Amino acid sequence: MNPEALRRVLAAALAEDLGDAGDLTTEAIARPDDRLEAVVVARAGGRVAGTDVIAATYGMLDDRVAVDVHHPDGCDVEAGASIATVVGPAAPILTGERVALNLLGRLSGIATATAALVASIAGTGARITDTRKTTPGLRALEKYAVRVGGGSNHRFGLHDAAMVKDNHIALAGGIGPAVGAVRLRVGHTVKVVVEVDDLDQLAELLEVGADVVLLDNMAPMTLAEAVAIVDGRMVTEASGGVTPSTVRAVAESGVDYISVGWITHSAPTLDVALEVR
Amino acid sequence: MNPEALRRVLAAALAEDLGDAGDLTTEAIARPDDRLEAVVVARAGGRVAGTDVIAATYGMLDDRVAVDVHHPDGCDVEAGASIATVVGPAAPILTGERVALNLLGRLSGIATATAALVASIAGTGARITDTRKTTPGLRALEKYAVRVGGGSNHRFGLHDAAMVKDNHIALAGGIGPAVGAVRLRVGHTVKVVVEVDDLDQLAELLEVGADVVLLDNMAPMTLAEAVAIVDGRMVTEASGGVTPSTVRAVAESGVDYISVGWITHSAPTLDVALEVR
Amino acid sequence: MNPEALRRVLAAALAEDLGDAGDLTTEAIARPDDRLEAVVVARAGGRVAGTDVIAATYGMLDDRVAVDVHHPDGCDVEAGASIATVVGPAAPILTGERVALNLLGRLSGIATATAALVASIAGTGARITDTRKTTPGLRALEKYAVRVGGGSNHRFGLHDAAMVKDNHIALAGGIGPAVGAVRLRVGHTVKVVVEVDDLDQLAELLEVGADVVLLDNMAPMTLAEAVAIVDGRMVTEASGGVTPSTVRAVAESGVDYISVGWITHSAPTLDVALEVR
Amino acid sequence: MNPEALRRVLAAALAEDLGDAGDLTTEAIARPDDRLEAVVVARAGGRVAGTDVIAATYGMLDDRVAVDVHHPDGCDVEAGASIATVVGPAAPILTGERVALNLLGRLSGIATATAALVASIAGTGARITDTRKTTPGLRALEKYAVRVGGGSNHRFGLHDAAMVKDNHIALAGGIGPAVGAVRLRVGHTVKVVVEVDDLDQLAELLEVGADVVLLDNMAPMTLAEAVAIVDGRMVTEASGGVTPSTVRAVAESGVDYISVGWITHSAPTLDVALEVR
Amino acid sequence: MNPEALRRVLAAALAEDLGDAGDLTTEAIARPDDRLEAVVVARAGGRVAGTDVIAATYGMLDDRVAVDVHHPDGCDVEAGASIATVVGPAAPILTGERVALNLLGRLSGIATATAALVASIAGTGARITDTRKTTPGLRALEKYAVRVGGGSNHRFGLHDAAMVKDNHIALAGGIGPAVGAVRLRVGHTVKVVVEVDDLDQLAELLEVGADVVLLDNMAPMTLAEAVAIVDGRMVTEASGGVTPSTVRAVAESGVDYISVGWITHSAPTLDVALEVR
Amino acid sequence: MNPEALRRVLAAALAEDLGDAGDLTTEAIARPDDRLEAVVVARAGGRVAGTDVIAATYGMLDDRVAVDVHHPDGCDVEAGASIATVVGPAAPILTGERVALNLLGRLSGIATATAALVASIAGTGARITDTRKTTPGLRALEKYAVRVGGGSNHRFGLHDAAMVKDNHIALAGGIGPAVGAVRLRVGHTVKVVVEVDDLDQLAELLEVGADVVLLDNMAPMTLAEAVAIVDGRMVTEASGGVTPSTVRAVAESGVDYISVGWITHSAPTLDVALEVR
Repeated sequence: MNPEALRRVLAAALAEDLGDAGDLTTEAIARPDDRLEAVVVARAGGRVAGTDVIAATYGMLDDRVAVDVHHPDGCDVEAGASIATVVGPAAPILTGERVALNLLGRLSGIATATAALVASIAGTGARITDTRKTTPGLRALEKYAVRVGGGSNHRFGLHDAAMVKDNHIALAGGIGPAVGAVRLRVGHTVKVVVEVDDLDQLAELLEVGADVVLLDNMAPMTLAEAVAIVDGRMVTEASGGVTPSTVRAVAESGVDYISVGWITHSAPTLDVALEVR
Repeated sequence: MNPEALRRVLAAALAEDLGDAGDLTTEAIARPDDRLEAVVVARAGGRVAGTDVIAATYGMLDDRVAVDVHHPDGCDVEAGASIATVVGPAAPILTGERVALNLLGRLSGIATATAALVASIAGTGARITDTRKTTPGLRALEKYAVRVGGGSNHRFGLHDAAMVKDNHIALAGGIGPAVGAVRLRVGHTVKVVVEVDDLDQLAELLEVGADVVLLDNMAPMTLAEAVAIVDGRMVTEASGGVTPSTVRAVAESGVDYISVGWITHSAPTLDVALEVR
Repeated sequence: MNPEALRRVLAAALAEDLGDAGDLTTEAIARPDDRLEAVVVARAGGRVAGTDVIAATYGMLDDRVAVDVHHPDGCDVEAGASIATVVGPAAPILTGERVALNLLGRLSGIATATAALVASIAGTGARITDTRKTTPGLRALEKYAVRVGGGSNHRFGLHDAAMVKDNHIALAGGIGPAVGAVRLRVGHTVKVVVEVDDLDQLAELLEVGADVVLLDNMAPMTLAEAVAIVDGRMVTEASGGVTPSTVRAVAESGVDYISVGWITHSAPTLDVALEVR
Repeated sequence: MNPEALRRVLAAALAEDLGDAGDLTTEAIARPDDRLEAVVVARAGGRVAGTDVIAATYGMLDDRVAVDVHHPDGCDVEAGASIATVVGPAAPILTGERVALNLLGRLSGIATATAALVASIAGTGARITDTRKTTPGLRALEKYAVRVGGGSNHRFGLHDAAMVKDNHIALAGGIGPAVGAVRLRVGHTVKVVVEVDDLDQLAELLEVGADVVLLDNMAPMTLAEAVAIVDGRMVTEASGGVTPSTVRAVAESGVDYISVGWITHSAPTLDVALEVR
Repeated sequence: MNPEALRRVLAAALAEDLGDAGDLTTEAIARPDDRLEAVVVARAGGRVAGTDVIAATYGMLDDRVAVDVHHPDGCDVEAGASIATVVGPAAPILTGERVALNLLGRLSGIATATAALVASIAGTGARITDTRKTTPGLRALEKYAVRVGGGSNHRFGLHDAAMVKDNHIALAGGIGPAVGAVRLRVGHTVKVVVEVDDLDQLAELLEVGADVVLLDNMAPMTLAEAVAIVDGRMVTEASGGVTPSTVRAVAESGVDYISVGWITHSAPTLDVALEVR
Repeated sequence: MNPEALRRVLAAALAEDLGDAGDLTTEAIARPDDRLEAVVVARAGGRVAGTDVIAATYGMLDDRVAVDVHHPDGCDVEAGASIATVVGPAAPILTGERVALNLLGRLSGIATATAALVASIAGTGARITDTRKTTPGLRALEKYAVRVGGGSNHRFGLHDAAMVKDNHIALAGGIGPAVGAVRLRVGHTVKVVVEVDDLDQLAELLEVGADVVLLDNMAPMTLAEAVAIVDGRMVTEASGGVTPSTVRAVAESGVDYISVGWITHSAPTLDVALEVR
């Protein structure tokens, strides 16, 4: 997990929680010598992702807090499982609790949702991939959680791969001119992805070629036809409105990748809690 | 909506999307004179929140993009409704699309979930309130969305109200000492909230008093009993595992506030899109 | 003392002192092996506040500098007293001297002025509280110094308590509408303070109620009358033009709190120096 | 006044005042169409400094607030004088009031204190100069206020002039080696100031020379003797414990500059207020 | 040119030039009404790149300065040519001069060096591309200048393409395992580049395949052989010690790209000056 | 070397190299237990400057990387010399390689170019000094490298010395008024430099005096004449178009300083590499 992005997100989270006045309650109650031992517990089953969050949060508050992770990233746990133990001075442990849990729960929620999709297409050759529909400021962390869930990352942003979509095609006056303009602008280390809406556009694309074709909002049968037409000349990706109940049919069409937005924008958080022993 | 928080979140979102290399595709294709007119559309029904996001995003990219909002924050829209029109140079409109939609969809999702809960307790005297279970870095914006949804805000962080919880009580050796320590530390402009788990603790609390009592994880019947015992001496708040199906029963117990975490941590995003005309 | 605020303030102070070129003089003269032992000395009597500043400053420059505090925050010292000892490499000790002393002297000056006011109202039930008339960027630290001086903190800003003042009342068309509007906007964890100028306004306020009434610029006799009228239904606070010579009379009126701006905006610095042994 | 430093200081001040939750009171009460006309008034006489603060503060909140300055920086005003008029939407005018006044009052306080010292040495050839005993983060603004008060600036930090003090001399083993080491390190565009405690040290310094000699803690008669000895070969500066009652005697010793720390670290703020019309 | 990167670099440059004390000289001399008309002139012939720098610099200082560009990015000018005219208040024009020229000269120097290389391989099918040997903090701007010079961009960093080099191969225990590990980690939108040192490694690579092969430090004849072996199955890139005198021979080997580090790390600046009319 | 400037520059460099996605290749290949020993090697002879860069870069990535410097700043090394050894976990060593080398090579390149100029004027009384023609954001580091090369620093920016140039003289209406205005504005710790183009201007300057006279673009013979006229009353500095082939003649004119822009804006980087053992 990108440590600099983690640090930045946690700093923002601590700032909004502590404000200028700090943790009024804990500062009033916890004495310097008070110590705690607490356990980070999963209150629901799921795939753990983001355990580095715990030590990183406490490291920002007080480096005397020791964190011992029992179920590292990638583990599937049941409700009640202990993810990590936290031992140290009482004040920072209570102060940092919510910040650590909020992020750990979110990332584990994403990994859990991804893992469920991955499981449901087992045996097909397809892979689940993410989108740019991520939480503002958390993209690097959320895409990490997707990988922990067994998914594969799509581009990180507008800057690391070119992706020609319907509006670009309209502006350029066709797929050919659009792809041509992109090839002129980007270097040889950048992949070109092109989104097509139907088989006519696919045929148009095959004349100029691309690295990846994104088959948008097609029924599984059309997808299978498209895969046959492409015949290995481009990586194929299905996208648009894929749900847990439709994903297997999509995968069985033979596409290489299936991109799903809701694993990052709408996956419910995994319920995690800090229980003092 | 806090404009500085909005600016900070959008700057982070644009940075992660654009990287150093920028929008490779749009830069390659859009000519300086290309102009677009596009509409931000709701693809599902819900409560709109965060329309300032649109103008703020485009204002960071190119101040020639004009945004006209048709359904401002607080409107309930149906699927297909036009939320705003965006007119201007093509390049920034395409470049900023995802950043603007990601945040608008998230905030509207929170407002929609909140509004549904509020509606389901209509006629009771209770109000829905939020928690600190928010997305790291987005708390100010998400709490705004809760207000747009008809909810009321709980404290913004550890710094603007004191809240004595189980672990504090254990450290202090009882509710009395815990509340006493807090009163010594905080000034006269800070409210003191105390969480109790059962009616015994409630009795203990009533001896020292507080501004708000948080009745944690109690059944509606116990809540009603607690409300009767408190008898107006403190504001009452129910919390813990409240769901859309249980919220009305909780509200009918007579509590003043019901705090619900999932409206911020797990509400699904509202599907919004940018459609070029 | 808020460690993040301290770090931010010291970073700014070091940046303005060191610029890009650094400490021209010390870099030229101090050799790598030169070591110093120095003592932070009070050159005038007062209440010490902010000793964390010393270690924090040197920690930013060179972690080999050891700081040993003899008179921690809250001690009353006489002129000539040693507050702390600093031992380590000569260069960082000389380079950080002015930054550390500037902040330590300012915070100790505030604590000293506050302690003097607190002492002068001993035996009354009143407490000294601060205002928002603080140094830009130093509020969290200055409010800490007020607590060290025995004072109590008023709100930290516009965000953590509502305070209805004359201009708000004028805009809203009366105390009732103003307080009503505030109650609609803020949650149940926020206190509402209302400023009144005379007993007529006080009567108007009592009809709607508030958590705290700020009795502005009233003579001690009027204050006493107001306290009697309020009769425990709200916390009472006197403000406006309170000086060391008038504070006791104000306190004897029976008010709960007396807010004083000059302890933060005009208290003279406590003279502290670094003496090399 | 350094616009970037001003912007940075105001941003910090607004952040600490607004927090994440914003101005709870004003947001609740002020309607979008409410407008105000207010006057920034001096409640005590003094030298105005920092009027740019007003427009800069309001410019950060709402660019529709118009500021018209009647008494620009450098004016001497009497109690009751109107410094500026502020007209525009009510909400930002009330929200920004305290931030603007805190800084304007502090800078005007410094200018007022400086101007009083300057007046008291009128007719001598000496000039008042400042020190590095400034508020953390506000040095550029406070040194500007000193100039508005008729004072001259000493170095801005450790980086823009070399200043050899007692501890440097002790480390180097004498004035000669200390000055020699500094000359080797700094370029030809940097002045070298040397602090001496008595006439013996002054004699030692004259053997190697410097741009400025700082005569530390000397009685006026000794200062006069030192000035005679220097005889124009260096700029002379008196420092140490200068007060309003001693400054004229110091000036009459013939020194070129008198540095005074309290004009920045302990000058009382000038009482300024915002009065709504 | 990435406007956010440009803004960040210029802000740093202005900060180091202005410090806290500002432009001492110009502030002393230029009166508010003084106006200037000045011309940015090329003192040597070359390819212009970075003209946005001029307006961006002045926009940060004073938005009344008007900039009119005569030779926009991509123009080849001769010594003496006027690149842009700058008209407005005298003070900001003089204050911003050096910052604007330093960056414009550097970017134009890179474009000029690149254009010379591009010209020298005219008629071959090869393209000049850059490396990661750029100035810290300026990469986005320098890679833009390479494009202005007719070059093509290599990857922007470690994050937007995978590149397997000798040390990676050694760690993984061969080209096959190295490429395999990378393919597992990166998504389908990321290209894989592999560096080979000789034809044996090339054969090894062809077994697993890659998007780009980087032929490191090979003589033109070996390059030609490698190109023949690859036979269009991968993009070919030559790198290592290419100089203006050897570049044509390298290009004639038939490689697709030639990467050259010195166009960014050692190209001399183009001499540009601001001449007041 | 200014540690804060170093930290800022390296943070920017790492950010642009790592982006949000990180080092795709190394993360895929290096296992947690993989360790490396590598040597930073000079591939060409030169003066080493900036070795602190190596430990600072790796300290930001992983504090388990140990750096041992064999040829510290100021050493003259031959091609093939080992500058430092780096030992530790493989991943951070590979990830930080390019960032560390880019900055070390640039600073060593500047030191090398400066040392060559210094050597070529050996025996004259002149010193080489730098200019403000530095890389945006790197000025403090580049000026340090000039000192390592045996040069002396000119002013760091517009803020730490006053320098009256032709445009200032034109605005003020002559050298006398320009110098007079500057003296009024700046304090007694700031040096005043004045640029003159010919001996007439020099005569005009001598009437009012300055600390330093910058003799711009004069032939060696004219410089000698100017030095004789100045006769020790000001420090003399030659500037303008000095090259390695002309610098000795300039130095022999008797000037005190020779400022050279190209040592910072156009010195080629010193070729340094990381070789894994």
